[in-house]
Formats: sequence, structure tokens, C-alpha cells
Amino acid sequence: MTIHDFPKGPYPTRVRIALAEKNLQSRARFVMVDLYKGEHKKPEFIATKNYSGTLPVLELADGTCIAECTAITEYLDNLDGQPALTGRTALEKGLIHMMSKRAELELLDAISVYFHHGTPGLGPQVELYQNPEWGCRQRDKALRGMHYFDAVLKNQPYVAGKAFSMADITVIGGLVFAAIVDLPVPEECGALLAWYERVRQRPSVKDQPAFLDLAAG
Amino acid sequence: MTIHDFPKGPYPTRVRIALAEKNLQSRARFVMVDLYKGEHKKPEFIATKNYSGTLPVLELADGTCIAECTAITEYLDNLDGQPALTGRTALEKGLIHMMSKRAELELLDAISVYFHHGTPGLGPQVELYQNPEWGCRQRDKALRGMHYFDAVLKNQPYVAGKAFSMADITVIGGLVFAAIVDLPVPEECGALLAWYERVRQRPSVKDQPAFLDLAAG
Ligand SMILES: N[C@@H](CCC(=O)N[C@@H](CS)C(=O)NCC(=O)O)C(=O)O
Ligand SMILES: N[C@@H](CCC(=O)N[C@@H](CS)C(=O)NCC(=O)O)C(=O)O
Repeated sequence: MTIHDFPKGPYPTRVRIALAEKNLQSRARFVMVDLYKGEHKKPEFIATKNYSGTLPVLELADGTCIAECTAITEYLDNLDGQPALTGRTALEKGLIHMMSKRAELELLDAISVYFHHGTPGLGPQVELYQNPEWGCRQRDKALRGMHYFDAVLKNQPYVAGKAFSMADITVIGGLVFAAIVDLPVPEECGALLAWYERVRQRPSVKDQPAFLDLAAG
Repeated sequence: MTIHDFPKGPYPTRVRIALAEKNLQSRARFVMVDLYKGEHKKPEFIATKNYSGTLPVLELADGTCIAECTAITEYLDNLDGQPALTGRTALEKGLIHMMSKRAELELLDAISVYFHHGTPGLGPQVELYQNPEWGCRQRDKALRGMHYFDAVLKNQPYVAGKAFSMADITVIGGLVFAAIVDLPVPEECGALLAWYERVRQRPSVKDQPAFLDLAAG
């Protein structure tokens, strides 16, 4: 399978972590799509890879494309019939999907909107329309989201309960993006910070390109 | 189980259809939360039912709450170990989640933002901040989304392929919301209109409160 990728991107990082958790990295070929050149907005990419014009996209040998991190994670996690990231029981599936979606709405996607609308984003060639007021509102929402996830993690070890799951990966994506836009986790969010320290030790997480600069710096 | 509901709401309609598809209606108790009175934004609702302050929310007998239509659908669909809406194989799960998410991004959620920001929405008591320019952009996006789904449905009978799925339900939610904001499907979208005609005949769909006025009118 081919991953249309931007190695340090917060969303592609979600799929890279899922691949590593499932031990599937060696089966993936990564193709770089340069976001700063707007390659993801080219008509051909939109028509053949992902109508929404975002990364990552997983392309199968027969040309079938699966976009959207949640969908790609569902696919990868169920390939061996032993889901480890998206839940086994109905209740686990429900809670993991809820918390992962909430991590998108209240953190990762909010920061993404802030990046594209409240900062120069990918630059004037790519950001053809910006709404700074909306962008800044989303930054404030993400900051509240950090406090929410901190409260969750005071009561349980992982975002969706007792086990590491897709929901943790989505929050990791959110904090990767938070670092890019310089929105540090507030010091008082001790449970969120401790969880982040802990999940960043995971072999699937620690060597991701998104963390390389930080490690070096 | 209890559904915190607003019977004609486009998102609650998604869960009502899923319940009916799985023949679980009789196990659900519906509790009305009045959106126009802002009951979903009350601190208690946010703290105990859904941090994001939206409907529907499914509450289990032990008080566990599952918010987010996708998560609730995953839960309901997997209760009997025979998923019929969210896919059985890895590929089905991936494609259904992709298309359902795309139907949110490009249609349903876009219309929701238009409703809350580009129209009076739930009224001045509830809509404490509006960004009309952003709202109207999302309306235009939803209109493009209709053309996208029309193109998809020219090539396959259902939104995610050969079978009715969660992705169809999400597009139905989008068209329910489109009617509320008076954004009709363009006449030239013949495949989308024909599909809508067809899925609205389903027993799970046709008697939903969201369609009652239309049937009467
Ligand atoms: N909903 C998508 C969002 C993906 C996304 O926004 N990816 C970023 C890369 S980190 C992107 O492509 N941004 C480019 C843009 O929005 O112009 C998903 O979950 O995969
Ligand atoms: N992402 C949520 C969205 C739910 C949603 O927006 N529901 C509407 C009811 S149709 C709502 O609660 N709107 C009230 C508001 O946003 O103030 C889901 O999929 O369940």
C-alpha cells in the first residue's frame, strides 16, 4: 500500500503511529506530497486521491483510495481481524470513536483551523481565503480542549479508558499540531502533560519524524 | 438506553435511523432536549452528557454517555456482533468511515455551520457568537458537496458502494439539514435526487419525525 504523506504533518503522524502499532510499516510505501507547494490542492489529486484535498491518503494496489485518518485507522486496525486501536466490543468501539472525534473537534481540527486561518498557514499561494477571527476562536477552543483532556486523564490512564487507542493517537496529533503553532499545553494541565510524556515513550510514537526536531533541539 | 434527542434534528435523525435499521427502537427511551431553549449548552449537560454540547447523546443504564453520531452508530451496530451499517471487512470499514466523514465535512457539518453562522440559527439567546462570512462559505461548500455525492452516486448505488451504510445515513442527515436551511439539491444532481427518493422509502427512514412535515405538506 502507498501512503500519500507529509512526514511531519500532525494528521499523517496519526496514520504513521497506527501503522507502527500494527507493525505494518514495512508494507507501506510513503510518497511525499508537498503541502507548502499546494500539491494536495491540485485538481488531479482532488479528482483521484481525496476530494477534500488533505493528507494522508492510503492507496491500495488496485487504486482504491482511503482518506481520513479515522477511516485509514479502521482499515489498518482490522486487516488482521484483531483490532487493537479501535475497540473490540460495541462499548469500546463507541467510546473510542467518541473520544477520537472529540479530540478532533475540540483539539486537533480546531488547531488546524487556527493554523490555516489565524496564522500564515501554508503561505499565500495555498491559503487563498483566510478568516482570522474564526481562526483565533478555534485556538481558544483548543486551549479549553486541553483542559478537558487533562480532566479526563486525571481519572483514567488513556483518553478512551484503560487502554491505548485511536483516541490517544488523535490527541497526540493535536499536541503535535499545538507545538507547530506554538500553543503549549498549560503547565496546570499536569495529567495531560504526564500522559504525553508517557505515550511519547511508545516505540510507535517516539521515532516519528514529527518528534525529530524536538529530540535534536 | 436513553437517547437525549431533538426529534427533527438532522443529527438525531441519523441515530434514529440507525436504531430502526438495527431494530432497536423499542429498547430506546427518548428524552427531549430543547435546542431552541439552549438546554444543550447548560453547564450540567456539558459536564455530565456531552462536553461538546450537542445532540444526540446515548446514555446507558450505568450512566455512561456516548456522544457523536458516528460513535453511537458504531455502538448500536456492533451490539449484536453483526455489523450491518459500519462494515464487516477492513476495506468496508475503511470506505464507510471515509464516506461518512466526508459527508460530514463536505455536506452535513458544512450546512450546520451555515445554519449557526449564516442564518439566525437557534436564535440570539443561543447563538452567542456568529461569523456570517464563514457561515456562507460553508453553504457554498455544501453545494459543491452535493455535486460531489451526485458524481459518486452516478457510479454506485449507495454512498460507500454496493450496500446501504452509515455513510448513506450521514448524507440523509445532510439533506434533512439542507431542507431546513432552504438549500435544495440542484436539479442537475439527478443521481443524488434519485438515490434520496430511493432511500427515503426505507422503513427506517420514511417515518422519521424529520420527514413528517414534508409528507403532510
Ligand atoms: N479530516 C482529515 C484532515 C487531514 C488534514 O487536515 N491534513 C493536513 C495535513 S497535516 C492537510 O492536508 N492540510 C492541508 C490543507 O488543509 O490545506 C483527516 O482526518 O485525515
Ligand atoms: N458532531 C456531532 C454534531 C451534532 C450536532 O451538531 N447536533 C445538533 C442537533 S441537530 C446540535 O446539537 N446543535 C446545537 C448546537 O450546535 O448549538 C455529532 O455527530 O453528533
